[in-house]
Amino acid sequence: MIKVGIVGATGYTGVELLRLLAVHPEAEVTVITSRSEQGKPVADLYPSLRGIIDLVFSQPNVDQLAQCDVVFFATPHGVAQSMVASILERGVKVIDLSADFRIRDVATWESWYGQTHGAPELIPQAVYGLPELNREAIANASLIACPGCYPTSVQLGFLPLMEAGCIDLSDLIANSASGVSGAGRQASIGALHAEVSDSFKAYAASGHRHLPEIVQGLNDMAVAAGAVSDASVNLTFVPHLLPINRGIHSTLYANLTDLSVDVQALFEARYANEPFVDVLPAGSHPQTNSVRGSNMCRIAVHRPAGGAKVIVLVVEDNLTKGASGQGIQCMNIICGLAENAGLAAPALLP
Amino acid sequence: MIKVGIVGATGYTGVELLRLLAVHPEAEVTVITSRSEQGKPVADLYPSLRGIIDLVFSQPNVDQLAQCDVVFFATPHGVAQSMVASILERGVKVIDLSADFRIRDVATWESWYGQTHGAPELIPQAVYGLPELNREAIANASLIACPGCYPTSVQLGFLPLMEAGCIDLSDLIANSASGVSGAGRQASIGALHAEVSDSFKAYAASGHRHLPEIVQGLNDMAVAAGAVSDASVNLTFVPHLLPINRGIHSTLYANLTDLSVDVQALFEARYANEPFVDVLPAGSHPQTNSVRGSNMCRIAVHRPAGGAKVIVLVVEDNLTKGASGQGIQCMNIICGLAENAGLAAPALLP
Amino acid sequence: MIKVGIVGATGYTGVELLRLLAVHPEAEVTVITSRSEQGKPVADLYPSLRGIIDLVFSQPNVDQLAQCDVVFFATPHGVAQSMVASILERGVKVIDLSADFRIRDVATWESWYGQTHGAPELIPQAVYGLPELNREAIANASLIACPGCYPTSVQLGFLPLMEAGCIDLSDLIANSASGVSGAGRQASIGALHAEVSDSFKAYAASGHRHLPEIVQGLNDMAVAAGAVSDASVNLTFVPHLLPINRGIHSTLYANLTDLSVDVQALFEARYANEPFVDVLPAGSHPQTNSVRGSNMCRIAVHRPAGGAKVIVLVVEDNLTKGASGQGIQCMNIICGLAENAGLAAPALLP
Amino acid sequence: MIKVGIVGATGYTGVELLRLLAVHPEAEVTVITSRSEQGKPVADLYPSLRGIIDLVFSQPNVDQLAQCDVVFFATPHGVAQSMVASILERGVKVIDLSADFRIRDVATWESWYGQTHGAPELIPQAVYGLPELNREAIANASLIACPGCYPTSVQLGFLPLMEAGCIDLSDLIANSASGVSGAGRQASIGALHAEVSDSFKAYAASGHRHLPEIVQGLNDMAVAAGAVSDASVNLTFVPHLLPINRGIHSTLYANLTDLSVDVQALFEARYANEPFVDVLPAGSHPQTNSVRGSNMCRIAVHRPAGGAKVIVLVVEDNLTKGASGQGIQCMNIICGLAENAGLAAPALLP
Repeated sequence: MIKVGIVGATGYTGVELLRLLAVHPEAEVTVITSRSEQGKPVADLYPSLRGIIDLVFSQPNVDQLAQCDVVFFATPHGVAQSMVASILERGVKVIDLSADFRIRDVATWESWYGQTHGAPELIPQAVYGLPELNREAIANASLIACPGCYPTSVQLGFLPLMEAGCIDLSDLIANSASGVSGAGRQASIGALHAEVSDSFKAYAASGHRHLPEIVQGLNDMAVAAGAVSDASVNLTFVPHLLPINRGIHSTLYANLTDLSVDVQALFEARYANEPFVDVLPAGSHPQTNSVRGSNMCRIAVHRPAGGAKVIVLVVEDNLTKGASGQGIQCMNIICGLAENAGLAAPALLP
Repeated sequence: MIKVGIVGATGYTGVELLRLLAVHPEAEVTVITSRSEQGKPVADLYPSLRGIIDLVFSQPNVDQLAQCDVVFFATPHGVAQSMVASILERGVKVIDLSADFRIRDVATWESWYGQTHGAPELIPQAVYGLPELNREAIANASLIACPGCYPTSVQLGFLPLMEAGCIDLSDLIANSASGVSGAGRQASIGALHAEVSDSFKAYAASGHRHLPEIVQGLNDMAVAAGAVSDASVNLTFVPHLLPINRGIHSTLYANLTDLSVDVQALFEARYANEPFVDVLPAGSHPQTNSVRGSNMCRIAVHRPAGGAKVIVLVVEDNLTKGASGQGIQCMNIICGLAENAGLAAPALLP
Repeated sequence: MIKVGIVGATGYTGVELLRLLAVHPEAEVTVITSRSEQGKPVADLYPSLRGIIDLVFSQPNVDQLAQCDVVFFATPHGVAQSMVASILERGVKVIDLSADFRIRDVATWESWYGQTHGAPELIPQAVYGLPELNREAIANASLIACPGCYPTSVQLGFLPLMEAGCIDLSDLIANSASGVSGAGRQASIGALHAEVSDSFKAYAASGHRHLPEIVQGLNDMAVAAGAVSDASVNLTFVPHLLPINRGIHSTLYANLTDLSVDVQALFEARYANEPFVDVLPAGSHPQTNSVRGSNMCRIAVHRPAGGAKVIVLVVEDNLTKGASGQGIQCMNIICGLAENAGLAAPALLP
Repeated sequence: MIKVGIVGATGYTGVELLRLLAVHPEAEVTVITSRSEQGKPVADLYPSLRGIIDLVFSQPNVDQLAQCDVVFFATPHGVAQSMVASILERGVKVIDLSADFRIRDVATWESWYGQTHGAPELIPQAVYGLPELNREAIANASLIACPGCYPTSVQLGFLPLMEAGCIDLSDLIANSASGVSGAGRQASIGALHAEVSDSFKAYAASGHRHLPEIVQGLNDMAVAAGAVSDASVNLTFVPHLLPINRGIHSTLYANLTDLSVDVQALFEARYANEPFVDVLPAGSHPQTNSVRGSNMCRIAVHRPAGGAKVIVLVVEDNLTKGASGQGIQCMNIICGLAENAGLAAPALLP
């Protein structure tokens, strides 16, 4: 059994790790930490885990975490960068669900996150944890920077088009919408039921922290495809807040530069062997509840009237494929387990 | 008091007319018809109207409707076209909330709605009921074709840009999302709470009936602005289904051809005197609950990093400004009443 | 026009007062206060009021409030008791939506609310603002203690049975459920969308602050009916939290002591002339959305298999008839206006 | 591997069986039938199962079903009774999730379900599938009548009190509320999102089909406890419709006849060894989302002010412990598997 530690297990990505790992056949959580809830049984905070997980929150402690095989960080940004080095030194693999190691350019990170980076020297060794793009690198990594929830959906949706080099990189649009758990488990008026339910809105239309992460990823794809030699992707990204708990839906728009491409066949071929990307039949519209609680990402491609505009519809669960499930998928790869170990359960429907 | 008849008052646009007209200071509903519910008191179907509206559904009858000053059609498409002529002949004004008279090109209408049009000779006299565009024509019209819910939001969002002639007409995108009341009050599995709630999806990504209506409107604006001499707007329109009852949110994307334009000022100037269009301060993000049950349309404009991409965020209540409220606004104009008579109540929040 | 002041207008009962008074034909809000939001336009906090209410939050100031005819307190408990005396002295009527003056026994109030009462000398002159019970006293009052949301529904549901003296007072049950706006507009994890939506729970099953208020009211009814000479009603009250924004549903259980009573006729007779209580036909089940945003209370009575158990189903909007609407109803009575002035609009459905 | 057949797999209990059995370690679904969807892949109806379950709906066929070890009926009432005999004859175990074999008295069944029973001769051999009550009988049964969703919650909530003989049987109350999936996956206006969401109501307050089933169960408990010699429990049962997809919450009321009983200890002792009943600490209030998608039933007991009234709060997922999960629990018992095989996953939270 792989021993797993979780730092910062009180938030929604933390409890999602616990939910999934509770029935993982080859891993068990042995340490969970929380500064604010130290000494409290996990089940007191999350009654859904009563009788299933008997652990008690403890203070983060490197010696204790060093006894794990893998340590997850399910903390706000800024925390992992202060602790990761000491854990890596002890030979423990680290999977960071926060934003700390996702962006390679330190100045960009510091600009968007408004603070000095605490461990810039570790950034080069961090592997971006998107298995569909980086499976081999993940297998050999010690430090995984798990992608953000929006970036996972947008990158998986554009990936086949980027690799095929068949779209105009100067005008990409990602119109995304997320369930409210993406805002975390903090008391805030903006996330109250009475404010969010029965309503919908865009936010951060003029700039969101996930934008530089997505652009970095798309640029990498473009460079790898030989389409460009340098950063040149121009993306407009508008996130929206959905009155649902879980789920991200991204509606992507691009203009084909090669009208002869069969986009349906392109997507099907690209993802044929991916265990967690499902390309729907032509004409489909994926619904977020088809991936609720599951690690699956479902994609449909449309090309209205056979024109140049290609529309990609992508759904994922922001807490699963968009965070904790993807982290466990990375753990499975690192540890040589079946990639879908502990991640095979279907979505909860209805 | 203006006497109002409503044909087909059992659906959601029908009950919305009743809700608004119940407290209209200068109009009263005198006839409501329904073939299926004939003889049943309105309040049996809609308990919210108990003690407020005492009418009973009757069979549609031209003699009876002829005693009204204004007759609303709140019917599925295909119904109004079979009855309107006989009502107009009796000198009664008709406001049609359905799609029957929105599209000028009969072949286009027949293609999208899958049936032969029953009154093509009336189409030329129908005035498209968007007061912000057609106020004078509405004032003198006998037959109003009320805009669809999506088309209202998309056209109001693009209107200032179209009139200013400052955007590239070859690549407009309307990414819209509607509450489920837009699907009407018909029993269907797809509109069940267990299917819709806690979920989100796109639909009709390859073509929706509101597309030709929007394109017709945008083309008209372009021609009026002298930007083009003929139909040439290229619009991509993707509707989505929100797990809310009321509300439409449209996120519009266009590329500025003139980077010097101050889009915030442009919108504020265009709508300065409009009673039902509210341009929010720069940096805002309108939320659908700010217009829940109200006839207001709220708009915000963004231009990320000051670039060429302009993003317009538009919210309206699909049953109010998107249907019945707009119909009453047209009635007020036709009848010479204050345009906001009966429409002044704020949104229901929370 | 009656001049209205609102102290503490930032919460949900405050914005509900503003929503209703915005279209009240004979009242206008002239002062709104908030310590925390001083200087901010109301519409910045509540975009639904943009273009409708142009007031700015000010510091509470007795001289300013003294220029009003009526002042509402929409504050947490403890605030009104510190300010009311100085306002009453200036001849201004006060309608308190908080709990400060609802309970006559000071010790009981202090025990449930955990603080010393700041104005016990005013309690005797406060009139409990339930018009169906106290209409005449309200008309002559200077200080109104508006009933709580749960207490309104429970008392209106039991009232006809209490007055008829036909139920066993030793075992009454009120199983109530409230929408989440009842918890107010404070940031708290328990009221987050991700915690409340798609879920349901009881709370305070062993004792809730509204229990002593309801018991006081029921005891008064019993004494008035001559059923008892002293406090003797035994009520079990269990509130529940609904994943909806507005609405209270109370399911009341009592045992008939007189099996010959026609409970349907009893309720219909009692409320025949009440403008805001609607007794549904036998066999009905009122739904909270039939009163959403309305001041109406709807009631149905059941007696399964014609036995001794009587079940009363009561719905109201907790923010309207359960708070602000009822306050305005009291204001109308005090000021000699039509009791339904500004309160005639039907519920928002769907 | 145990071979499982499912008759009528298109409804919500059917897809719930598929969801749970998809990851059951010792069972696999080999046949699924549906008259209406014959020939269609399961995943076309339920995209959540794409890539996980590759079966195609077939016509019900006894020869094919006879090759299974266990056959589930997830059909409306009336179907199982017409097919079960022929399947039992072939030596196959049958677990019926419908109401066909729950009620022993044929006349009572026929009265509540409005039709003649098609297989009254099988009723005596049917075992009521509530493991907490009937574990041994289930182990040896060939035909299981799975309890209804409401009856499971009400019976588990009253069970310890009934067995202890410490409550007044003449006045029990079950105030229950269910998510909308309990109404099944049929197109109906009453279950539309726009009718159900943001609302709440009671229904069938004067009599619901689950009432005779619950009363039968409670009477059995009373007789077994020696409290009575015959049917004598008097239960008032009022179901309510919640705007959630999954979950039942029952609030039970009874009067203690023995004030010395420690109800908390009583419940904890009774359920100490039950894998799927969790008694919460004193003072708790279980929330339905703590069992969303899980087979767990959580219970809390209250006794306000230490009086005679005992309040039991019970939550379960109506599709899991209230239907399909309980059916699989029975299957595990019949087949000699670990009782929690395939049922160990925690609830989906948030």
